[in-house]
Amino acid sequence: MTKKTIAVLPGDGIGPEVTRAAIQVLESIGRLYDHEFVFREGLIGGSAIDEKGDPLPLETREISAESDGILLGAVGGPEWDHLPGDQRPEQGLLGIRKMLDLYANLRPVKAYEALIDASPLKTDIVAGVDFMIVRELTGGLYFGEPKKRETIDGEEQAIDTLAYKQSEIKRIAERAFEAARVREGKVLSVDKANVLESSRLWRETVTECAETYPDITLEHMLVDNAAMQLIAQPTAFDVIVTENTFGDILSDEASMLTGSLGLLPSASLGATGIGLYEPVHGSAPDIAGKNRANPLAAIASAAMMLKYGLQMEEEATRIENALEKVLEAGYRTADITESTQAVTTTEMTEAVVKAL
Amino acid sequence: MTKKTIAVLPGDGIGPEVTRAAIQVLESIGRLYDHEFVFREGLIGGSAIDEKGDPLPLETREISAESDGILLGAVGGPEWDHLPGDQRPEQGLLGIRKMLDLYANLRPVKAYEALIDASPLKTDIVAGVDFMIVRELTGGLYFGEPKKRETIDGEEQAIDTLAYKQSEIKRIAERAFEAARVREGKVLSVDKANVLESSRLWRETVTECAETYPDITLEHMLVDNAAMQLIAQPTAFDVIVTENTFGDILSDEASMLTGSLGLLPSASLGATGIGLYEPVHGSAPDIAGKNRANPLAAIASAAMMLKYGLQMEEEATRIENALEKVLEAGYRTADITESTQAVTTTEMTEAVVKAL
Ligand SMILES: CC(C)[C@H](C(=O)O)[C@@H](O)C(=O)O
Ligand SMILES: CC(C)[C@H](C(=O)O)[C@@H](O)C(=O)O
Repeated sequence: MTKKTIAVLPGDGIGPEVTRAAIQVLESIGRLYDHEFVFREGLIGGSAIDEKGDPLPLETREISAESDGILLGAVGGPEWDHLPGDQRPEQGLLGIRKMLDLYANLRPVKAYEALIDASPLKTDIVAGVDFMIVRELTGGLYFGEPKKRETIDGEEQAIDTLAYKQSEIKRIAERAFEAARVREGKVLSVDKANVLESSRLWRETVTECAETYPDITLEHMLVDNAAMQLIAQPTAFDVIVTENTFGDILSDEASMLTGSLGLLPSASLGATGIGLYEPVHGSAPDIAGKNRANPLAAIASAAMMLKYGLQMEEEATRIENALEKVLEAGYRTADITESTQAVTTTEMTEAVVKAL
Repeated sequence: MTKKTIAVLPGDGIGPEVTRAAIQVLESIGRLYDHEFVFREGLIGGSAIDEKGDPLPLETREISAESDGILLGAVGGPEWDHLPGDQRPEQGLLGIRKMLDLYANLRPVKAYEALIDASPLKTDIVAGVDFMIVRELTGGLYFGEPKKRETIDGEEQAIDTLAYKQSEIKRIAERAFEAARVREGKVLSVDKANVLESSRLWRETVTECAETYPDITLEHMLVDNAAMQLIAQPTAFDVIVTENTFGDILSDEASMLTGSLGLLPSASLGATGIGLYEPVHGSAPDIAGKNRANPLAAIASAAMMLKYGLQMEEEATRIENALEKVLEAGYRTADITESTQAVTTTEMTEAVVKAL
């Protein structure tokens, strides 16, 4: 019997309902494979601000640091929008990424056959889409210093800094090359090398790094062009590696391609071995607490935890297969159907548990 | 008889053929309305590097500064990709933007009925798309200082800076509000205010500025969400205003929505009254010199020059109507048809001239 401790950080909005669903599925997996998952819950984001006055309370840091993996729901919501930047729910998420040095954000984008009609794109464009965005997560424009506001000659100014060291670029490039190895062997590095110094260092470093991976094909693309090509020919991609902000924008754009935003998981990995796993979707305050949220992205995130964090590949695949099965069987939460017959969060979760 | 001097900067790749087309159309307009357009040609980008060793030679600066408006083709190509960042073709474009303080880049995105089938998006999603992106063009991440590379403790590092002063944000916001006034009265300001200091100043300043425009509705959206919504519901937008880099990415994404990249024009306006007008598409070196390029974006850019730069609204509308007419009549260059019956650049141009 393997025992694993999972930190569960439900967060805000629909976070609690969807992480609950993921726990339920993990418990089933535990029974099926004789693993013991111990869940320790912590506050993060807006709910942590409300209860502790801090988006990332000390206790949450401890629970996370002592875990084998972290399941996160979502953070943020309009009730905290008025707070100053450094005291917002998002700081909880940014803080934990930084604390655990979670520099590699893996976002697989896959078109589910059964859902292809829900895509805003034409079927022949999205059918077969299957790629992975590897977003740098602890550097770039999000964290560079100086990051400040000041009054110069009586006028307000604000500054953010996009900074990278070669070592930061190298380690994320390596993740991308490794990811491509178990995929189709193609890496596309996205930058703005015709304008940005940091992008030129990025391109140089990724190119150098490629020498160690002669089995992988490396190409480069400017970020504006990548934003176009994601729509024009999304099946052309395998692994895309890019800077923090570019990755934020492109991965959200990509999540819209397949009509299955409610299904997309992500993994944030670092040097410590403790990863953070969360749905790509946000906290969706408008449907929070209504048992209407799609739990599949959180469940798929739990599967990523098994695969990338706990070396339980078979168990992960079992969850992934169950997800495909319930979709093929026609189960749909409200986000992926226009019919009034949508199933609830709990019904969808039970269907997945049965399909395991 | 009005006399206007137009600086023509054909640039690289297909730049020369498409600007030639635009000139031809302007000459027709000149005859029809009894205007005299004087065209003065200048080198820019890669071809300027080849001939003068400078992507923006002094003579080009002079021709531009003395003009009533600038028609630009496109810059860049693989033959100059090996050059160091500050000596590339793109520096010609960035240089002229900065020199004339062209801080407002207007990019209308419109679905042409006749072309809707060429869109990667479903017809019901793109039908009726008609919005304008107002991109800040002389600040933000493109120009902020420090922008440099250095070795610290034996390791290479690179830095770019995203900086804005309140006055820079205010003037671009005003352009957006003005643009919305002659449209549907809605401005969406796009930022990353949950992470970036510059975005928080951006949001604050745009909000303040809105007080002077009580007739306009202002909303805010995070850039990652905007990248999604552009695909999910592109008809929801009217005017989008955003930072330089965000605008670069979002406007290229948007250009792909309607299947008519080859038709999209842009105007870059500043304080001096001299604007720069150029197609959104690039230099397309693969088809350069083959008489295959779509001249419509360059022609539509000339129409924007008449409208925004030379106060010739009627003439501009006449060109726009001619464009719609040739598309409805079935004229298609190779980029917008799969048929082998595609017309050439010159045939398309002649069709437009006739349709005037
Ligand atoms: C909540 C926000 C800070 C976060 C980010 O921008 O990284 C989110 O958009 C994401 O992509 O995980
Ligand atoms: C050529 C390049 C410098 C330019 C930019 O990034 O601004 C182009 O992509 C554009 O959008 O006009």
